[in-house]
Amino acid sequence: MSPLISRRGQVQPFRVMQMLDLVHRRARDGKHTIMLCAGQPTTGAPEPVLGAVEESLHASALGYTEVIGDRDLRETIAAWHSETYGVSTSADNVIITTGSSGGFVASFLAVLDHGDNVALSCPGYPAYRNILESLGARVVNLVCDESTRFQPTAAMLEALPAEDRPRAVIVTSPGNPSGTIIDPEELERIARWCEENDAVLISDEDYHGMSFGRPLATARQFSDRAIVVGTLSKYFSMTGWRVGWLIVPDELVTPIENLQASLALCAPAVSQVGGRAAFSTEARAELDAHVERYRAARAVLLEELPKAGFPTMADPDGGLYLWLNVAHVTDDSEAWCHELVEEIGVAFAPGVDFDPIDGHHWVRLTLCAPEEETREACRRLAEYVRR
Amino acid sequence: MSPLISRRGQVQPFRVMQMLDLVHRRARDGKHTIMLCAGQPTTGAPEPVLGAVEESLHASALGYTEVIGDRDLRETIAAWHSETYGVSTSADNVIITTGSSGGFVASFLAVLDHGDNVALSCPGYPAYRNILESLGARVVNLVCDESTRFQPTAAMLEALPAEDRPRAVIVTSPGNPSGTIIDPEELERIARWCEENDAVLISDEDYHGMSFGRPLATARQFSDRAIVVGTLSKYFSMTGWRVGWLIVPDELVTPIENLQASLALCAPAVSQVGGRAAFSTEARAELDAHVERYRAARAVLLEELPKAGFPTMADPDGGLYLWLNVAHVTDDSEAWCHELVEEIGVAFAPGVDFDPIDGHHWVRLTLCAPEEETREACRRLAEYVRR
Repeated sequence: MSPLISRRGQVQPFRVMQMLDLVHRRARDGKHTIMLCAGQPTTGAPEPVLGAVEESLHASALGYTEVIGDRDLRETIAAWHSETYGVSTSADNVIITTGSSGGFVASFLAVLDHGDNVALSCPGYPAYRNILESLGARVVNLVCDESTRFQPTAAMLEALPAEDRPRAVIVTSPGNPSGTIIDPEELERIARWCEENDAVLISDEDYHGMSFGRPLATARQFSDRAIVVGTLSKYFSMTGWRVGWLIVPDELVTPIENLQASLALCAPAVSQVGGRAAFSTEARAELDAHVERYRAARAVLLEELPKAGFPTMADPDGGLYLWLNVAHVTDDSEAWCHELVEEIGVAFAPGVDFDPIDGHHWVRLTLCAPEEETREACRRLAEYVRR
Repeated sequence: MSPLISRRGQVQPFRVMQMLDLVHRRARDGKHTIMLCAGQPTTGAPEPVLGAVEESLHASALGYTEVIGDRDLRETIAAWHSETYGVSTSADNVIITTGSSGGFVASFLAVLDHGDNVALSCPGYPAYRNILESLGARVVNLVCDESTRFQPTAAMLEALPAEDRPRAVIVTSPGNPSGTIIDPEELERIARWCEENDAVLISDEDYHGMSFGRPLATARQFSDRAIVVGTLSKYFSMTGWRVGWLIVPDELVTPIENLQASLALCAPAVSQVGGRAAFSTEARAELDAHVERYRAARAVLLEELPKAGFPTMADPDGGLYLWLNVAHVTDDSEAWCHELVEEIGVAFAPGVDFDPIDGHHWVRLTLCAPEEETREACRRLAEYVRR
């Protein structure tokens, strides 16, 4: 009999999640790991969210919500987005999804046909690439390095040969794995290029709320044809709750509603009920304090990594990550990461996930661990490479 | 500028969910609707689930779980599946998904390439068709009527012309929308046909746990190449929690894990924690009492619908639905359903969702509403058609 697996089903493993699974398995065996691998706050949901969930448990059957999400949550997100960026975002354009993951699948299907080109930064978030390839889209790499602070530019899009002209362009700012922020002026140029070249701009704003100083713009300031992707997982510290959102052009509301109905029915009800409380003043105070912790972890890494012999990195402007060059110690970042877990109990994410070209020389660290654990990880790393 | 929507993004609306959204909107306007449209128990999660969730809220950060799901939940499901059907299902073959919806998307991508044929019953669950079409698969309708109790047979598969030979076959028993159960002997014949013809059997067992008498077999009794789909939404009364599972052949565990990592990261953590408690003896007692209520609602419908002038239907062997012929009152089941909501405050699901050929003459009713509401719906319907 022939193999069960299809050709397109043979996607790359998501090594960050494999690493996280390894950490979970070690925990079951009683082994502690300093976890700098996953983009996951260690903090859990803010208190007002837990309170709202507790209250809802007996007050409601928590059945299916409306397909495009709980109306109150959509209005809360629209108000937050409007206020944060000085735009006027209507709840009618907000669609609640099952994490931003659910938003990517639905929006990719909504705008891409089989064989369409999608331009995205390399290094970049591996799930884009994996989902796109399994849906039959063609990934066009915008190779980014320190010269553009690991972010794509309109000039890169303009320089693409005709056969690589994209139907969609994905930008991620603050970046994953880079942590760097695209200047608002550059984001505007990219948005304008997309409009002029009939490409759909998909702006992954999952790491918004977390800047260490640079201004953060939303793509909706520059184009109402752009799709914005957001999430409760990162700034809002609710990874496991699986709630994200899309802000989409009028033209896409009904098609994405139809797709979402068949792909997912709706996002988790209990998480949507809790999610509303994540935008409260009280929750935001708690969440802003987390950002200060990420800032402190960044400071530790920027100070300690060069001392440990790792001077080459992207300096994070925001978000949860630091992208670190390890070319002088390994040509196989994946094997090296596994070695570190075994030998010193520290988990990094292998760069091969994010960069199919040069990722064997890079790893991604997160800023999520407590400052003292981050410092301890650097100490162990320094000692390990000195051996 | 060209339209944003792709060709494949233009899926059919899921009218059941539209109807449910309409009921939600009416509720916001203070209008009550007797809801016989959605496959959703009115009861909410069993008490032990709510207790487990309450306990977990402050005990854990509820971050990402392992990609293929919480190990304890996987073991619980494997034990339940083994015990229920007398098979030996290992937790290693169980993958927790975001509702069974998440399981369908992942397994379709895992086994189907662009252009592959998939055979499924007509009438059948609309999301299969919608997802498959947007993923570029080709749907082959197995037209089912009362002669096979609205279920497909191995003979139908054998009779397919060469160009319709399927790469995958989907069966749903108890059926949606039919509520009928495939005899174990027929399921075995279908499983054997699939093995002999190199087709992947996908057995949607979402409505298991709810039989009014007939035996229910799992496809895994007959083939370890079959994919079984299950959910906490139906028997376990946890629709909005979005937890389902796949039981897959060894060969597919890693590919589906890789797909799931990129498509979803993981199923909602809080729902997985709660889900474990749904299999407890205490929860099962509560859930088995719900099945008795569905049985009572079925009895009401079987008695009252013919009296109201609707004698033609599929007699539900289990599950949550009754498939009702309305050809003598309308040629447009969708318009008629909207009329009923407006005129008598009763929501049915339009048959066009389930049957692209003859669905304009059918509607789907659920057995989930309380017995008295079900009786009241029949009373209003009888009065309405007498007008």
